[in-house]
Amino acid sequence: MSITFLEDGHAASPAGWGAATTACGIKYQGRDDLTLLVSERPCSAAAIFTTNLVKAAPLRYDMALIGRSAASLRAVVINAGNANACTGPDGEAAALAMARATESALGLPVDTVFVMSTGTIGVPMPVEKILGGITAAAKGLAPDNGPAAAAAIMTTDTRPKRCAARIDLPSGGAITIGGMAKGAGMIHPNMATMLATITSDAAVSPDVLDAALRAAADISFNSISIDGDTSTNDTLLVMTNGAAGSPLIDDMDSPDYQAFIAGLTAVCQRLAKEVVRDGEGATRFVTITVRGATSDADAKQAAMTIAKSPLVKTALYGADPNWGRVLCAMGYSGAEIDPDKVRLSFGGMPVLDGGMPLPFDEAAASDLLNVPEVTIDADLGLGEGEATVWTCDFGPEYITINAEYRT
Amino acid sequence: MSITFLEDGHAASPAGWGAATTACGIKYQGRDDLTLLVSERPCSAAAIFTTNLVKAAPLRYDMALIGRSAASLRAVVINAGNANACTGPDGEAAALAMARATESALGLPVDTVFVMSTGTIGVPMPVEKILGGITAAAKGLAPDNGPAAAAAIMTTDTRPKRCAARIDLPSGGAITIGGMAKGAGMIHPNMATMLATITSDAAVSPDVLDAALRAAADISFNSISIDGDTSTNDTLLVMTNGAAGSPLIDDMDSPDYQAFIAGLTAVCQRLAKEVVRDGEGATRFVTITVRGATSDADAKQAAMTIAKSPLVKTALYGADPNWGRVLCAMGYSGAEIDPDKVRLSFGGMPVLDGGMPLPFDEAAASDLLNVPEVTIDADLGLGEGEATVWTCDFGPEYITINAEYRT
Repeated sequence: MSITFLEDGHAASPAGWGAATTACGIKYQGRDDLTLLVSERPCSAAAIFTTNLVKAAPLRYDMALIGRSAASLRAVVINAGNANACTGPDGEAAALAMARATESALGLPVDTVFVMSTGTIGVPMPVEKILGGITAAAKGLAPDNGPAAAAAIMTTDTRPKRCAARIDLPSGGAITIGGMAKGAGMIHPNMATMLATITSDAAVSPDVLDAALRAAADISFNSISIDGDTSTNDTLLVMTNGAAGSPLIDDMDSPDYQAFIAGLTAVCQRLAKEVVRDGEGATRFVTITVRGATSDADAKQAAMTIAKSPLVKTALYGADPNWGRVLCAMGYSGAEIDPDKVRLSFGGMPVLDGGMPLPFDEAAASDLLNVPEVTIDADLGLGEGEATVWTCDFGPEYITINAEYRT
Repeated sequence: MSITFLEDGHAASPAGWGAATTACGIKYQGRDDLTLLVSERPCSAAAIFTTNLVKAAPLRYDMALIGRSAASLRAVVINAGNANACTGPDGEAAALAMARATESALGLPVDTVFVMSTGTIGVPMPVEKILGGITAAAKGLAPDNGPAAAAAIMTTDTRPKRCAARIDLPSGGAITIGGMAKGAGMIHPNMATMLATITSDAAVSPDVLDAALRAAADISFNSISIDGDTSTNDTLLVMTNGAAGSPLIDDMDSPDYQAFIAGLTAVCQRLAKEVVRDGEGATRFVTITVRGATSDADAKQAAMTIAKSPLVKTALYGADPNWGRVLCAMGYSGAEIDPDKVRLSFGGMPVLDGGMPLPFDEAAASDLLNVPEVTIDADLGLGEGEATVWTCDFGPEYITINAEYRT
């Protein structure tokens, strides 16, 4: 199995994909804020939505849509600057209007366009501006616009997140998986939103695609934490159009499926890690691995609890080899642990064994943490369960960004 | 029912209680760090311990002790500066030695002394210093030392937390309930620890006392959050010695029980709020009330999720009337909510109704938040469930305190 990331890859890198962007002036000045990502053929599609009970209007639209169009989706329209959340019946109408306008402008059947919004919540959508932008953008579709698309979906992100990988299938052909994401940036005046769209020219049946996306998300987008808050708009979409001409992947036991999910996971992980690297106020990228748990689920629960602990995250900011806070977080995580069996390392240096601190050089341990990429490894000594998650530290900049007084 | 807080009340205010403190030099210079709190008669006792699976040695000692001495406890010994956590078999021996030394110095039977420790974790206990301190302190027991006791248990707390209330019982007598707590201050190099001891001269049977403590803790110490981390040492102890001469309270349906639990709750809530007010880096004291939930438990879950959200807490620091973050937190809290029915107010000013933002004056709303005591009120519009919790905001000082580089 071979996965090769393309230089300068993006969501329109796979065959049969085009992108377009334009500036509607929804909120930002001097930049594009509306994106179309379009396949020349019908796609299999699958999506994962926020578990927050407060769901933005486009998510409610998409959740219904994906049920009836999982074999026929053609495009996604995305606006930045307004999340279309807490906008009532007008918001529902705006999401529907965006879909219909895109279908109309591109000459597509109804129910083939997925809608995403990110930005301020509780503000009425400037529908006319957005519909005008859709009409304008629809004239400029091109594969070369993939990088611009990744930039146009940004809110307080400091850089676009995009990539594409080429995967050689065991059955002979080659496919490309591309993607773009916007991350946990705080949207004045409201909340973080994670949006990600994955594209491919592979041919995958909708049910297999749905299973693949859930498995890949579990160890990528669902294994990251910036601040533990779950937004109203989080959406992960995958669309595959078969334009590569490779055989249909409709069997989860096939070698081609194994290659596809490996590629999908690699693309999702790369984008998810980029979201963490661009976390608000982050100065360190932290990889937390928990091994020896009684199950993978327990390992992930322990690792995510460490990743979310403000005490751990502030210690990481200070390059403090504070094993006590890590052990403490695992202790209240709900995962099964026996404190007397826990081993812990920072940057590869053992600091705790059998629940007891080892005599380690504090300054050397701090040096291992005072770097942009930090690792924390825990072994619970109970079983074979294992999980890796990614997070960032918690510096003063996080508070500055998120406490900014609204004017 | 009448509850009157005493001026300058403390844990030795109830009849038959004495306190003593001394300086052992465990960690701090120029201050007392060892405390004895002693009843002249055997007490009914009940305790609640951290749910963290990583439990400090004294907690393991006390958990066994309370089972066999719930009707005969006499004293508690408390040291500050070392949490006796992650200290292995030597730590177990140290906790036992502290109990035995106190029993011996005071001429008490074995298994009558409860042990608490707070401070650094993972550092061997300076047992000789502590045992010497116990012997010295035992000579100076006096009711007047209650205020000194509350000061000697502090770690990074900026002020002692203590109070006492007089409760008139319906059956005729009067009792006093006192208490002291130390709070969520970060202990260099490790974690927050909440210790609280409640004393009384009431006569209460051990099983009724246990039930009363759990009910009172649920709406006091278990309804506060500083940063969402649960420590290895959290302990809440109550001891009642009957010295007031009032009738035995052994019936949870009796009027005297109602008066007792009202007083116990009032004392616990006052101390718990003091812990929040002294939260690390806190600039605002925040009271969050959720009404209209389908159950009290759901209301509390929603309220505690708001209280723990870093996005809400940083917005509060910035006096930002950011209803979106509050609604979002309730949405992922796990509590049953219908976003279209939620009403929300900041400082009494409605900002959200039916899940939609109201046109409110942002500057006026910010003014309502830019005060030391802030209220957030949510009504879920679903049922009769209600809960109130207390938290603080999240300012840059929190990170400064917790990221401090260990030298």
